Amino acid sequence: MLKIGIVGATGYTGEELVKIIARHSKASITSLSAIIDKPTKISDIFPSLTGKCDVVCKELDVDEVSKSCDLIFLALPHRVSMKYVPQFLKNGKKVIDLSADYRLSAGIYEKWYDAQQTDSNNLKEAVYGLPEIDRDKINKAQLIANPGCYPTSIILGCLPIVKQGIAKVDTIIVDSKTGVTGAGRKAALPLSFPEVNENLKAYKVNTHQHKPEVNQELAKVTKKVVDIVFTPHLVPINRGILSTIYLKLKKDIDTKELASVYRKFYRTEPFVRVSSDRLPEVRDVVNTNYCDIGVTVSGSMAIIVSCIDNLIKGAAGQAAQNMNIMCNFDEKEGLIT
Amino acid sequence: MLKIGIVGATGYTGEELVKIIARHSKASITSLSAIIDKPTKISDIFPSLTGKCDVVCKELDVDEVSKSCDLIFLALPHRVSMKYVPQFLKNGKKVIDLSADYRLSAGIYEKWYDAQQTDSNNLKEAVYGLPEIDRDKINKAQLIANPGCYPTSIILGCLPIVKQGIAKVDTIIVDSKTGVTGAGRKAALPLSFPEVNENLKAYKVNTHQHKPEVNQELAKVTKKVVDIVFTPHLVPINRGILSTIYLKLKKDIDTKELASVYRKFYRTEPFVRVSSDRLPEVRDVVNTNYCDIGVTVSGSMAIIVSCIDNLIKGAAGQAAQNMNIMCNFDEKEGLIT
Amino acid sequence: MLKIGIVGATGYTGEELVKIIARHSKASITSLSAIIDKPTKISDIFPSLTGKCDVVCKELDVDEVSKSCDLIFLALPHRVSMKYVPQFLKNGKKVIDLSADYRLSAGIYEKWYDAQQTDSNNLKEAVYGLPEIDRDKINKAQLIANPGCYPTSIILGCLPIVKQGIAKVDTIIVDSKTGVTGAGRKAALPLSFPEVNENLKAYKVNTHQHKPEVNQELAKVTKKVVDIVFTPHLVPINRGILSTIYLKLKKDIDTKELASVYRKFYRTEPFVRVSSDRLPEVRDVVNTNYCDIGVTVSGSMAIIVSCIDNLIKGAAGQAAQNMNIMCNFDEKEGLIT
Amino acid sequence: MLKIGIVGATGYTGEELVKIIARHSKASITSLSAIIDKPTKISDIFPSLTGKCDVVCKELDVDEVSKSCDLIFLALPHRVSMKYVPQFLKNGKKVIDLSADYRLSAGIYEKWYDAQQTDSNNLKEAVYGLPEIDRDKINKAQLIANPGCYPTSIILGCLPIVKQGIAKVDTIIVDSKTGVTGAGRKAALPLSFPEVNENLKAYKVNTHQHKPEVNQELAKVTKKVVDIVFTPHLVPINRGILSTIYLKLKKDIDTKELASVYRKFYRTEPFVRVSSDRLPEVRDVVNTNYCDIGVTVSGSMAIIVSCIDNLIKGAAGQAAQNMNIMCNFDEKEGLIT
Repeated sequence: MLKIGIVGATGYTGEELVKIIARHSKASITSLSAIIDKPTKISDIFPSLTGKCDVVCKELDVDEVSKSCDLIFLALPHRVSMKYVPQFLKNGKKVIDLSADYRLSAGIYEKWYDAQQTDSNNLKEAVYGLPEIDRDKINKAQLIANPGCYPTSIILGCLPIVKQGIAKVDTIIVDSKTGVTGAGRKAALPLSFPEVNENLKAYKVNTHQHKPEVNQELAKVTKKVVDIVFTPHLVPINRGILSTIYLKLKKDIDTKELASVYRKFYRTEPFVRVSSDRLPEVRDVVNTNYCDIGVTVSGSMAIIVSCIDNLIKGAAGQAAQNMNIMCNFDEKEGLIT
Repeated sequence: MLKIGIVGATGYTGEELVKIIARHSKASITSLSAIIDKPTKISDIFPSLTGKCDVVCKELDVDEVSKSCDLIFLALPHRVSMKYVPQFLKNGKKVIDLSADYRLSAGIYEKWYDAQQTDSNNLKEAVYGLPEIDRDKINKAQLIANPGCYPTSIILGCLPIVKQGIAKVDTIIVDSKTGVTGAGRKAALPLSFPEVNENLKAYKVNTHQHKPEVNQELAKVTKKVVDIVFTPHLVPINRGILSTIYLKLKKDIDTKELASVYRKFYRTEPFVRVSSDRLPEVRDVVNTNYCDIGVTVSGSMAIIVSCIDNLIKGAAGQAAQNMNIMCNFDEKEGLIT
Repeated sequence: MLKIGIVGATGYTGEELVKIIARHSKASITSLSAIIDKPTKISDIFPSLTGKCDVVCKELDVDEVSKSCDLIFLALPHRVSMKYVPQFLKNGKKVIDLSADYRLSAGIYEKWYDAQQTDSNNLKEAVYGLPEIDRDKINKAQLIANPGCYPTSIILGCLPIVKQGIAKVDTIIVDSKTGVTGAGRKAALPLSFPEVNENLKAYKVNTHQHKPEVNQELAKVTKKVVDIVFTPHLVPINRGILSTIYLKLKKDIDTKELASVYRKFYRTEPFVRVSSDRLPEVRDVVNTNYCDIGVTVSGSMAIIVSCIDNLIKGAAGQAAQNMNIMCNFDEKEGLIT
Repeated sequence: MLKIGIVGATGYTGEELVKIIARHSKASITSLSAIIDKPTKISDIFPSLTGKCDVVCKELDVDEVSKSCDLIFLALPHRVSMKYVPQFLKNGKKVIDLSADYRLSAGIYEKWYDAQQTDSNNLKEAVYGLPEIDRDKINKAQLIANPGCYPTSIILGCLPIVKQGIAKVDTIIVDSKTGVTGAGRKAALPLSFPEVNENLKAYKVNTHQHKPEVNQELAKVTKKVVDIVFTPHLVPINRGILSTIYLKLKKDIDTKELASVYRKFYRTEPFVRVSSDRLPEVRDVVNTNYCDIGVTVSGSMAIIVSCIDNLIKGAAGQAAQNMNIMCNFDEKEGLIT
């Protein structure tokens, strides 16, 4: 059994990681840590875990975790991850970092996260962990930068159409809607129930920090400068992202043909489902690691709808998928319920 | 007191009309009708109305309603309205029709509503009831085609920027999100709580019947062909529409300047509020007749957020605003709580 | 115009008070205060108030508020109110306190609120502000202890049946369900959307601080010791309380007769509606000052359902009703929308 | 592999059954049927099942189903089940019926379900499928009457305290709150999102058809007449039941001791968890087959909180648990995710 440590176990992503590893046939949790008053059973923090996982969650001790684990998931805020990643790597551990710290080039990171990326050596070696882009690199990586939730939904929604040159990349408009767990498990007035419930809002219009992540990855695959227009919205649901993506077509293609392009592109992917006839909805993917994609062509415009569970394919599930790839496990292990 | 009849009183729009007229100082309800098993007090159908309005709701009898009323609101499904409108007009009544039957030119109507507009005479005389476009016409009208909910939010969001030639009109992308009352008060599996709750979906992608209504009205004010790209989405809230509108700018302008254009444009409007510093949210407008608009410029793109309560400014409130204009009442009467 | 000050204007109750006074024909807001970083227009804190009230909210200055106001509403946490109440009273002002500080006898307060009641002089003169118990006392009062939200729903649900000796008072079981605004406007993990949404929980089982308030008031009207069993529950709605009350009957009575007792008892009350045929639901009373009550007799048990909007009849609306009574205004002024 | 047929596969319970069997290591779905326009893949009806189960759902043909299946789950409305159960039994099949048709004695059924129980022979042999009462009987049964959702939560909440004579059984008051899937997957105005959302209501006060089911089962274990007072409430969540149960104690016992009684009673039960320190909440059990129970003693009253997922432990999960017991499978197989 692969011995797993989860740092930041008391957030929503941490909770999902615990659930996935608890049902994994080839990995088991040996360490849970978080900022915490006193050592506490994780099932006392998340009572739904009672009987599934009773490991005690403690304050982080890097050496102790390194000794007891083979692979560490870091579910920490950005800026915090890069303090610990070098230590775990030096101790010879595999690391999957769910923060943004190793996703962007140093200059871009500094601009969008208002912080210095202080671990340039490991940044160079980090692999962006979207299996649908390049799972060979993931397989060989020691450090995975696990993608953001919005970028996962957007990049998977765009990959086939931009990679194959069917749409222009200079005017991609992305209108995303997310559930509230995307903001993390924390006390904050704007996340309070009466502030969110029966409400809808746009926020960080074209200034959200996930925008450069999408630009960077789409630029890599298209070899062109990409600068999406991106408006995220908060909606009163717990989980799920629905991204509606508007692209100008470069050639004449109808809905059926475009769907066929997508289906072919993702043919062998275990966690991307391309809809036909019917557009995907958030509830189709909640509690799953799937990204569901539907396409519509209308005139010269392609309208793509892409849905994920922000905590699973958008975070913990994709992290576990990356672990499976890194460790030569069945890629679906632990991810099908 | 102006004597008011409401036909279709048992829907959500009918309920809101009853509430508004019940608090109006110069109008009172004399007739309520609907498809109904037996005459029933409206407060037995909507118990929240108890003490506010106890008028009995009956099956429609056009002559009886005509005798007892000066002005009739029709809150009926499209195709049904145009059966009754000619009769009420012939009886010399003022009519405010909340269906789509008198909003579009005959050919367009037929194409999008899959039905013949059979009342071409009155169609010619009908005035599209968006006060912010032309309240003089409304003032003189006998028949008002009350705008759709999506079009109200979209047209008001676009009017200043397109009328003043600041943005291109050939690539307007509109991503709208609506609450569930927009679909009407009815038994339908897709509207059932567990189907809607914890879910998000796009529907009728670029094929929604409100698209030609926006195109038509924006074409009128710009004297150009307009063909928006329009994706409506259903979100689990009771009331409210948030439309996010993406337009390409034709000239160099920043957020502050654009906000100033909007503010100037709507300076004298009693029910349009232009936000500064902060984008509008649905809860700012729920239960009000306001349309709140916020603007953002990012590069060559203007991103407009426009919020209304779909049942008030998107239906009953705007209808009452039109009544106030037609009858030379204070335009805000009955609409401020 | 009566000049009104609201202390604690930035909470949900404060917001409702502002709305009510803004539409009141005989009172107007001259002062808003709260713990606040810098003076801020209340409409910048609650954008829905834009155009209704643009008074600036400041840090509290008791003397300044006393100079500019005739009557002060205190929407403050318990323990805090009793610091300011004596000062406003000494300055000759009428005070309506929405905290628990003046509701209970000193010993009971100390036990349930874990704090000393330090203003015993004024405590003696304070009048419990439930108009349905004794509006003459309210009319003559200088200081009102505005009732708690749960107690309002429970006491009104019990008054007729216990006052007339129809049910036993030694085994009253109260199972209440509340919306989340009842917990106040604040940052707290247990109030965060994903923690509350799709969840139900009981809390403070038979230990909630509103229990002695109900006991005290029912004891006063029955002249008997009352000790209810009280379980509050949190449900994912913004507003509303539904209390289900179980009482053992002392005599043979059927549902119709009991309803008739209730109807007679509340005949002249402007804000209590007794349902027949149908039980009240939370949506019937949301955004209103009504308490809706329905009764069922089953064998020797009476089951009473009592619904209020916790922020209106359970707080701000009742406070305004008390103001109307104290100032000889029409009791419904400002409270009907 | 045990071959499974599910009749009534297009309801919420059917959907959950498909999910459970799809992950079961010793059972697989060979037949799905329902009232349906034309044969349709179940994953086209429930897109979340795509990739998990693509069996085609057809109109029911009893003989065909009997040929292809070893065990049949009937997820049908009451009155309908008893038409098919005799045929499947005659064909030698094991049957788990999720309707109420075989739960009650004939006279009681007739009174509460307003229909004749027409299959008295099999009624005699049917075993009430609550494993915590008597799993030996279930093990030997050919026909299981799977318990109702409310009764499961209530009976499990009461069993230890009433069986051991700690509380009186003549004054059990049960206040239950349920999510909306409990009403089934169907088009109905009262289930429409805007009618349920932001609302709370009691319904069928002490007249709900699940009341006699609880009475009957508690009478069996206590050998006393039981007549609970039962008020169900509808709350705006998709899934979950929380029952708050009030019982008069017959002897002096404190919370800790009572919790210890419960813990001992359910010690060996795989799907009952007794909380300590903290009361259970609905989210602890959603998507699981657990019943979580918390107890509080206050004076002479025991207050029990019992939570289940109405679709899992309250329906499909318990049905699968019964299948596991009938077929000598591990009782937890397919039920842990």
